[in-house]
Amino acid sequence: MTKTAFEPAKFQSFDEKSDPGQVAPRLKSLRSAMRSAQVDAFLIPRADAHRGESVPASEARLAYVTGFTGSAGLAVIGTGSAGLFIDSRYTLQAPAQTDTTLITVHEVNQGGISPDVKLYVPKGGRLAYDPWLHTPGEVRDLTDKLAGHAEVVPHANLVDAIWTDRPAAPVSPIEFLGHNRSGRTTEDKIGYLRDVLDAEDADAVVFTLPESICWLFNMRGRDVPNTPFVLGFAIVPKTGLPTLFLDDAKITPDLKRALDGLAEIAPGSTLASALEALGGKGQAVIVDPQSAPAAIAETLRGKGARVIEKRDPVLGPKSRKNAVELAGMREAHKLDGVALAKFLHWFDGAAPGGELTEIGIVTALESFRREEDSCVDASFDTISGAGPNGAIVHYRVTSKTDRKLHAGELMLVDSGAQYLSGTTDITRTLYTGAASAEQKDRYTRVLKGMIAISTARFPLGTTGAQIDALARQFLWQAGVTYNHGTGHGVGAFLGVHEGPVGIAPRYTVPLEAGNVLSNEPGYYKTGEYGIRIENLIVVREAEGFPGYLDFETLTLAPIDTRLIERSLMTQAEIDWLNEFHARVWTEVGPLVSGEVKAWLQQATAAL
Amino acid sequence: MTKTAFEPAKFQSFDEKSDPGQVAPRLKSLRSAMRSAQVDAFLIPRADAHRGESVPASEARLAYVTGFTGSAGLAVIGTGSAGLFIDSRYTLQAPAQTDTTLITVHEVNQGGISPDVKLYVPKGGRLAYDPWLHTPGEVRDLTDKLAGHAEVVPHANLVDAIWTDRPAAPVSPIEFLGHNRSGRTTEDKIGYLRDVLDAEDADAVVFTLPESICWLFNMRGRDVPNTPFVLGFAIVPKTGLPTLFLDDAKITPDLKRALDGLAEIAPGSTLASALEALGGKGQAVIVDPQSAPAAIAETLRGKGARVIEKRDPVLGPKSRKNAVELAGMREAHKLDGVALAKFLHWFDGAAPGGELTEIGIVTALESFRREEDSCVDASFDTISGAGPNGAIVHYRVTSKTDRKLHAGELMLVDSGAQYLSGTTDITRTLYTGAASAEQKDRYTRVLKGMIAISTARFPLGTTGAQIDALARQFLWQAGVTYNHGTGHGVGAFLGVHEGPVGIAPRYTVPLEAGNVLSNEPGYYKTGEYGIRIENLIVVREAEGFPGYLDFETLTLAPIDTRLIERSLMTQAEIDWLNEFHARVWTEVGPLVSGEVKAWLQQATAAL
Repeated sequence: MTKTAFEPAKFQSFDEKSDPGQVAPRLKSLRSAMRSAQVDAFLIPRADAHRGESVPASEARLAYVTGFTGSAGLAVIGTGSAGLFIDSRYTLQAPAQTDTTLITVHEVNQGGISPDVKLYVPKGGRLAYDPWLHTPGEVRDLTDKLAGHAEVVPHANLVDAIWTDRPAAPVSPIEFLGHNRSGRTTEDKIGYLRDVLDAEDADAVVFTLPESICWLFNMRGRDVPNTPFVLGFAIVPKTGLPTLFLDDAKITPDLKRALDGLAEIAPGSTLASALEALGGKGQAVIVDPQSAPAAIAETLRGKGARVIEKRDPVLGPKSRKNAVELAGMREAHKLDGVALAKFLHWFDGAAPGGELTEIGIVTALESFRREEDSCVDASFDTISGAGPNGAIVHYRVTSKTDRKLHAGELMLVDSGAQYLSGTTDITRTLYTGAASAEQKDRYTRVLKGMIAISTARFPLGTTGAQIDALARQFLWQAGVTYNHGTGHGVGAFLGVHEGPVGIAPRYTVPLEAGNVLSNEPGYYKTGEYGIRIENLIVVREAEGFPGYLDFETLTLAPIDTRLIERSLMTQAEIDWLNEFHARVWTEVGPLVSGEVKAWLQQATAAL
Repeated sequence: MTKTAFEPAKFQSFDEKSDPGQVAPRLKSLRSAMRSAQVDAFLIPRADAHRGESVPASEARLAYVTGFTGSAGLAVIGTGSAGLFIDSRYTLQAPAQTDTTLITVHEVNQGGISPDVKLYVPKGGRLAYDPWLHTPGEVRDLTDKLAGHAEVVPHANLVDAIWTDRPAAPVSPIEFLGHNRSGRTTEDKIGYLRDVLDAEDADAVVFTLPESICWLFNMRGRDVPNTPFVLGFAIVPKTGLPTLFLDDAKITPDLKRALDGLAEIAPGSTLASALEALGGKGQAVIVDPQSAPAAIAETLRGKGARVIEKRDPVLGPKSRKNAVELAGMREAHKLDGVALAKFLHWFDGAAPGGELTEIGIVTALESFRREEDSCVDASFDTISGAGPNGAIVHYRVTSKTDRKLHAGELMLVDSGAQYLSGTTDITRTLYTGAASAEQKDRYTRVLKGMIAISTARFPLGTTGAQIDALARQFLWQAGVTYNHGTGHGVGAFLGVHEGPVGIAPRYTVPLEAGNVLSNEPGYYKTGEYGIRIENLIVVREAEGFPGYLDFETLTLAPIDTRLIERSLMTQAEIDWLNEFHARVWTEVGPLVSGEVKAWLQQATAAL
């Protein structure tokens, strides 16, 4: 595989750059724009129109105005006061980054808009939002919450109007995935969409999610960190060529050739007029109400289109990886297994010295991964939690929080990488010289839950909601649990988090062969330690059990056996662990040498 | 306890009385009524306005017109043709009971109205329904399905207009449950409802479910078989006395005294005008859209009320049995344990002879239960399936299907009783002299699933949907499952099936302390045999695990250990079974004597 189109991303950064001193002048000029626009309050979400976990610098409006750089949040700028709504992951970070004399930070639950938005909107006033940055559901929610208090109106983005030194939108070159990497041609995928359009009696479908256009057109880019996304939009009509809306400068010759006769390219700025044209013809257009900005449906309806609200039809087939994608994922996990073996060997030697730091651990792991040429990025910022920091589920180490790992503390490392062949995500909890009986008990119950998912068999039609408790049952018996899902969907050289399937009560879509999922139960004792063990798994047809599915494990890195309380394990569980370790040794062993190989052999020895 | 108010119900009948010869004249007079009413088709559901599993003879309109007596179904009578929509339980029964030259039987899935209803309604015609027999959701569903085809209109019931010899509505005397049996006064329950009305900013709440009015006013009746329901309606206003709408002849002196100053009694025929009066005052009224007939909300809205759609607020607290109700349930299960011990002893002696029949088994079991004075009825028609009939999940034996139980066949008996102290529901699968390795394997996996639920511990907030898979996991490993829920809610001397909690993917309401549930995994091999093992369990706070819940088992009857494949059981499972049997012996042993006692001792001996 060539890396021509793919410059590796920079290493993870550990500084939350922000200058609270900039908040005052920016608020001032925004309020001046608000006055001109006769708006009493303006909404600034963290999301861009594509709703990914990362946004490019050109879309970081929330950070520009408030200084806050977290991955989720919403600001409401009133004429005299302003509020910043964040979740518990950012309790410390948000006040440190913004100017709290000018912006009040509210900690709220994830999901839904806080009714406290009202505090920043005068009674009878007008709250404006950018319809390209909110879904119809969010607009409805907001309108409901402000009913009888204030008017909620769409408006051109006022931040853009005052953002004088706004970075340019990313124009990273796009890489085309040949059939040997995608396993399915764009032509075939468009054919599938035409069947969907037929079935729904629709004339066209609009795509706004980068993961969907990347899958559909077999392309990958570098527009945002961690995920090989190409930011853009697409319209696929029932007759005629699909249009891909993105900057022509991103198009590499390879992709141009591949799309020749299959799709047209148009600048992103022409999307609105294309939607209006569909409306003008009175067409029926499929739009995903959960992800497409409100502006899409509004523009279509405004010109006479019939909008069919339906989940993005790419999400289902994209989640069912084909044989070529699965071969790539297996390859990526073998490469990741090599990096993990090097890392774990290094860690095992260095940790008992008590001089490692959380940042040092992240950097070492990333370096080991970068030794492989086809590793182009981390798939997310590594969670590197030493001792008590391991209990912070979404902990992300910064220069300010960086902490030494003392011998005898548990170390939780949750990390992943983007290889050209596929995406990885793995968590290991590591022994550093001592562990209490309670830690071993909890570690073993977490492991038993992970094994229960790994060995589960279930009939077609079963959802992730149904099997979630298999992972929790042993912790529940001890009167404890974990406050996150057991698993999320994972893309094939795409997003490390993707829908529509997962393992948690909220995932009510049936699991299907080819779904790649994480399997990551955990246990967290606030102020003391955190435990999580995570492998990626693939749903497959269960051999010899027609109508049934089970899982193949993708991840190939040892699970620390020094933390196991063996008396809690059944023989079947020990057998699974031994077989898993034997496989790690067989597949990764030949790819490492010297001390690493010797270390891997003992780390994968049968219990 | 006295049985004054409670005449025991008749024994289960095994004949589906119906006369297909009556279908022709009844259809003829119904069609004449339809012509007068300018209606092109008329809907006849099985349900009455109270939506219980049983309806009194006076409400059996579906049986009157079509001859079909099953517990669910819907007929559509067109001007020239007619359809009867039933589910797979009635594939054989429905065609046998109706005149298939005049009525076409359609087998459809349970839940939702079949789009084939359209076949009996002419294009552009009018389909009429009785708004007291359908929920708003059903009317919406029907209207959607006939959109662009025919009009769906409410109409007075046309069957009632032609039903000359219609039986009178039941006027069984009502029994009042004193505080020593209900555990909570009506006054207190009304106080709770006033809090609900306050919280919802509502003026009144309407009740249409018999289980809700029975709970609220601490009364029980005999208006329908199997369940001690009083059929009626109630309105509870924020200020002033609640009104109970039912026939004054049902009111016993005890109840009259108990309700004195607490509620007014009015004839059922005055409900509509009472609803109109609420509307006239522009009141806000809570109505359950899932259970209240469409006529309720329509009548209220028609006169200016604001209808608040909200689940019947009695269902939640009713499902959380209080300490007195739980003591009653434990008492009922001890009495049922005595009857089961007698029955199982008798069965064990008689079955190997190969002369028992399914009906004989039902009758014997019912006789043993009737030996206890406080047993007033079966809680449902016994499912008595010998050999292959055991594989028919909802099998109900009739004189025509009655079958001999041959030695060596499995026998499935699912039965329950109404005691004055509480309601029972138990399934046992019985050994008759031989069992195949496969039967033992399946039986043991079913048992392991039942034990997994019995021993589950889980945090507050967990739903039945989440734990359902614990019961299925061992069958899933063998590539098999069962096509029914693992458990349903059970009332305290009320319905043997009640909401809102249960154990199945559809139950997404959190389990709470005091919920009584069935725990009944199974396995069915069509044409060969059926296995189900069922105990009732109560949710309780888990001792020593704050914030966690677990289950107490109520049922006290031996589980046949001769069908267990011991090598599949863990020591923890064997321990549970031995402790369960030791408890059965301790609690039921002292209440039986002679041969039964000797039999019980060996049946509950430790494995």
